[in-house]
Amino acid sequence: MNVTIWNENIDETNQVEKVLEVHPHGIHNTVKDIIAELGDDVHITTATLQEEQIGLPDEVLNQTDVLIWWSHKGHDQVPDEIVAKIHHRVLAGMGLILLHSSHYSKLLKTILGTTGDLQWRDDTYERIFCVNPTHPIAQGIPENFELGVEECYTEYFDIPKPDDVIFLGWFDIGNVFRSGCTWTRGYGKIFYFQPGHETNHSFFHPHVRQIIKNGCKWVCPTAYKENFGAPHIDVTLEEIRKANQ
Amino acid sequence: MNVTIWNENIDETNQVEKVLEVHPHGIHNTVKDIIAELGDDVHITTATLQEEQIGLPDEVLNQTDVLIWWSHKGHDQVPDEIVAKIHHRVLAGMGLILLHSSHYSKLLKTILGTTGDLQWRDDTYERIFCVNPTHPIAQGIPENFELGVEECYTEYFDIPKPDDVIFLGWFDIGNVFRSGCTWTRGYGKIFYFQPGHETNHSFFHPHVRQIIKNGCKWVCPTAYKENFGAPHIDVTLEEIRKANQ
Amino acid sequence: MNVTIWNENIDETNQVEKVLEVHPHGIHNTVKDIIAELGDDVHITTATLQEEQIGLPDEVLNQTDVLIWWSHKGHDQVPDEIVAKIHHRVLAGMGLILLHSSHYSKLLKTILGTTGDLQWRDDTYERIFCVNPTHPIAQGIPENFELGVEECYTEYFDIPKPDDVIFLGWFDIGNVFRSGCTWTRGYGKIFYFQPGHETNHSFFHPHVRQIIKNGCKWVCPTAYKENFGAPHIDVTLEEIRKANQ
Amino acid sequence: MNVTIWNENIDETNQVEKVLEVHPHGIHNTVKDIIAELGDDVHITTATLQEEQIGLPDEVLNQTDVLIWWSHKGHDQVPDEIVAKIHHRVLAGMGLILLHSSHYSKLLKTILGTTGDLQWRDDTYERIFCVNPTHPIAQGIPENFELGVEECYTEYFDIPKPDDVIFLGWFDIGNVFRSGCTWTRGYGKIFYFQPGHETNHSFFHPHVRQIIKNGCKWVCPTAYKENFGAPHIDVTLEEIRKANQ
Repeated sequence: MNVTIWNENIDETNQVEKVLEVHPHGIHNTVKDIIAELGDDVHITTATLQEEQIGLPDEVLNQTDVLIWWSHKGHDQVPDEIVAKIHHRVLAGMGLILLHSSHYSKLLKTILGTTGDLQWRDDTYERIFCVNPTHPIAQGIPENFELGVEECYTEYFDIPKPDDVIFLGWFDIGNVFRSGCTWTRGYGKIFYFQPGHETNHSFFHPHVRQIIKNGCKWVCPTAYKENFGAPHIDVTLEEIRKANQ
Repeated sequence: MNVTIWNENIDETNQVEKVLEVHPHGIHNTVKDIIAELGDDVHITTATLQEEQIGLPDEVLNQTDVLIWWSHKGHDQVPDEIVAKIHHRVLAGMGLILLHSSHYSKLLKTILGTTGDLQWRDDTYERIFCVNPTHPIAQGIPENFELGVEECYTEYFDIPKPDDVIFLGWFDIGNVFRSGCTWTRGYGKIFYFQPGHETNHSFFHPHVRQIIKNGCKWVCPTAYKENFGAPHIDVTLEEIRKANQ
Repeated sequence: MNVTIWNENIDETNQVEKVLEVHPHGIHNTVKDIIAELGDDVHITTATLQEEQIGLPDEVLNQTDVLIWWSHKGHDQVPDEIVAKIHHRVLAGMGLILLHSSHYSKLLKTILGTTGDLQWRDDTYERIFCVNPTHPIAQGIPENFELGVEECYTEYFDIPKPDDVIFLGWFDIGNVFRSGCTWTRGYGKIFYFQPGHETNHSFFHPHVRQIIKNGCKWVCPTAYKENFGAPHIDVTLEEIRKANQ
Repeated sequence: MNVTIWNENIDETNQVEKVLEVHPHGIHNTVKDIIAELGDDVHITTATLQEEQIGLPDEVLNQTDVLIWWSHKGHDQVPDEIVAKIHHRVLAGMGLILLHSSHYSKLLKTILGTTGDLQWRDDTYERIFCVNPTHPIAQGIPENFELGVEECYTEYFDIPKPDDVIFLGWFDIGNVFRSGCTWTRGYGKIFYFQPGHETNHSFFHPHVRQIIKNGCKWVCPTAYKENFGAPHIDVTLEEIRKANQ
């Protein structure tokens, strides 16, 4: 499994201290440490906004089985043509994990076709409830757990009806959120997971780590779509049956 | 539209004061007042556990388009053969609204096939969030509203994956709940709605009243299943095509 | 209800005889006759590719509650900025019906985010089966009916998992198709319906007419999304509760 | 993984020749050969209607991770109390695969709560289309394949809306069917698969075998529900937060 972890890496590049305190090597490397726990069969690449072609040239993207994405301030700096390439690659089968503020990424808006609108407030307290205990992404996760301090995201969250809502978030300031959601698009599977504010420690919470690892395994493609297009049906059943006689 | 409102009517019969203070004529009549706001086209019947055949003899049940159900202490006193009749009537098309503690009714367990398990605690504070604003049951309801004091029901709620989750409940003691859920079974539509504890005033909240009225209209059948059974296909397309030549 | 019917109107403009034989006033006017059967409360506008701004200037689009779309050869001639406006209008609540070859329109690809890929062959024979008899779009439609000669569209159809699959198509050359599908996006409802090849008579079939009329009523918005954006939560529950004391 | 394969074994016991020609050791052993291909990690038991407690005493059932079920003429001979035990075991997490005519088993009717009604005709020709290529049950299966001679089952099929429809069946006599469907109930996963008439050779088709093996792996539980009931919430978040300070 080839996993590519993309991070806008803006606060880190700008040496924002309260971000570096939590993620001394950048959010991409924090997430890399999580995925590395999946073992040696997983080949991990990181990529950031600051790199050539934002670190996702064709030779990287076309080898990627799972793309993990974190963006916030830099949504608009991601070039449209790379968004289009990622979109196509997802339709072909590549798995996609969208973390936290990526709800407002061009990727989510383009692939899912909705605004990703929600409301938010920093420094609240979150509990997470599992409402889909048989889902592979919930494997090993209790029916609810204390996440602790996180940024509140609240409904109404403008997303297409998820194939599955796995987690609901409860926030002490009076709000709820569909915190873990999945979709498929073409041959690609997508997992959105809400925790992961840049100054909070959610990515170090053991259940969050487990969920991201589970998500990585779940979105990993079992098949790639090879035939794009809308071809004429050249052979009918009648002809197939004759050929098989 | 013929609406039948069923209430176990146990606390009321036992003259439990704190229930009668809220529902002086019984929960069934409180709900009747809500449905009556739908206008003169709706013919309303009430029925209770204390009546002959719990108020649901065939001549009532077979004329009912929408059955609204509230039970709590008396789940087990509802005869199995009447549950079976209601189940069959739902599969034929009758709409069903299950209110509050009916999550543990024989009806829900039989028709949906799960336990209805949850956890609960009295006298908490609830907010309700709409996560499905295009659903007819959400018509006229804001994206969230303050319900006030209600009994907390919390996930994990053991129900089949709903066709639609319309409302999520947030409770101040740290819990969330899928508070408004729909399913279809056969030709029948089912709406479960969580508010309505016997000593709380939720049924007098204008948004709750609107939701129950919307629910009543939504579950009302547009067609009845007439043919039960698994018959042989006596006529094939080949024969139909010949007959139409 | 303001309904706008859009047709690329290319074959008609080019005087393609076998199309004009079926649709002497263009496909848009054939569909207009269907919608007109909904009665005088419906205000109908038609629009075509050949008009200024393809007949959809802001003053038309912003008054439209339901947009019905038929395109085939002219998908690429629809300007991207008008697609973006329609997309936004759907997210705000406008209903959208995509007919037949519109599976390959920019609209479907942009709003749903998949390719719309399928396979096809002309002049086959189709039967339609209802697999969702409680859905409002199925009201008055039997459990199956003979459509007759139609263009075969076959799975795999590359669409997001529909909120509801209402109809399945059976084709005599050995193929099946999810022929009637719904989604919601933002506050907008979308209905894709497969029949309607330009040289076939499906739009004159009474059940097809009923389905399109049902679809028009179903996608018609009950609410419009007014607040776009991701605002800060300025007031918490604590403050709301204090204000209500 | 402990897999128990249950077969009513009636035709086989009655020495019905055309069944024994296809399944010389009974349908249960035909299916056993399929599951055995999953390798040595799978422990397989067979059970039949003729055995004591139909071969499913508590010590067998409570060790079973996946139950595969084939019944037809003997639906009514399965004791209600064993159906209730299986139902409970599914809610606790046991996977369930219902094959072919089991659409009319007490198990399906009890667990899913619908009639399982459909229409049928022997000796037709079936093609199977995959409409959910990312589902684990579809892994290794092409977008469509020729099944060959099978009993036609046709819509309307009276089942709850599946969590996923994976396969659609096309039949040459003019019919379609949702041939592969999944649901979850409680912690249990359920897969219904339509092929497998007693006198046809579908269980020897390589794709059918792959689908059943995939299904077995997919329904196998990743967790068991341990806490049944609806307990009071004894500890609130307030208390949890204090305890964690």
